[in-house]
Amino acid sequence: MDKQYIIGVLVSNISGVLSRVSGMFTRRGFNINSLTVGETENSDFSRITIAFHGDDEIKDRIIRQLDKLHDVKAVEVLEKHDTVTRELLLIKVRNNSEIRQDIMTAVEIFRSKIVDYSPEALTIEITGETTKIDAFIELVKPYGIMEMCRTGIVAVERGGNCLNSMNN
Amino acid sequence: MDKQYIIGVLVSNISGVLSRVSGMFTRRGFNINSLTVGETENSDFSRITIAFHGDDEIKDRIIRQLDKLHDVKAVEVLEKHDTVTRELLLIKVRNNSEIRQDIMTAVEIFRSKIVDYSPEALTIEITGETTKIDAFIELVKPYGIMEMCRTGIVAVERGGNCLNSMNN
Repeated sequence: MDKQYIIGVLVSNISGVLSRVSGMFTRRGFNINSLTVGETENSDFSRITIAFHGDDEIKDRIIRQLDKLHDVKAVEVLEKHDTVTRELLLIKVRNNSEIRQDIMTAVEIFRSKIVDYSPEALTIEITGETTKIDAFIELVKPYGIMEMCRTGIVAVERGGNCLNSMNN
Repeated sequence: MDKQYIIGVLVSNISGVLSRVSGMFTRRGFNINSLTVGETENSDFSRITIAFHGDDEIKDRIIRQLDKLHDVKAVEVLEKHDTVTRELLLIKVRNNSEIRQDIMTAVEIFRSKIVDYSPEALTIEITGETTKIDAFIELVKPYGIMEMCRTGIVAVERGGNCLNSMNN
């Protein structure tokens, strides 16, 4: 059955590793829903989080292909029930007096924050799980989204287990 | 003079565009500090935010190369004084009774949030500008960072101007 998988990938922090990892997905026809990459506490390593849709067989093939890449140090499938996932969104919405109060109410209920205000536009920062971010976007869509910039998903396992077992 | 540049890139939301953009940086020897990619309000387009260090000449070459790529619809240099930038970090720190109160205090002062708690570990979510995220990491480092997962920078221009001028 098709579902969304999230995998954490620990890689050497060297030039080209991101294009090799994303290129593997392209060449094999696997479709990425979301990808983030950031430095870790050890600057020799970066951590890539990839979300994709597929079945168990596709997931297993992806893990095998990633394991083969020289710069990949660890790969882990993060199970939904046992994982903290977050995204961040900056979204710019039209500002006018008729709808301003509605937007302010939405911002408060979603525990988001207005981070820029001008006569033309309000820019809002919101963090949460993907479903929350999606719901907020749907809610403000009728007011006129001018632009948005979304980080994609980051994820870590709950409890004391770590992707980078070298640190345990 | 070397400084950090942040550019917003609007691209067609098709397979392979991320590896083509990141591959261009690799091939030309440009070093990426941070890259995020996410869908926009129009699912035909994704938005990539790239931070890199360089001088004006390198910046101009990168813009020219990106403009040449077929799937790139718009490129904009986001000037620091006129841009909202944010990152999100999930960070797992060792949990023990001697240091717990220190960590709780840091969490409060940085307006961050504990999102998972177990006998072995505390997982903290923090958002802000890069300098704030870096300061928090430095602060909790002595307590034992078990793992961390960072989104990289997202950025939008202040006021009513947009990368996707088609929506204006």
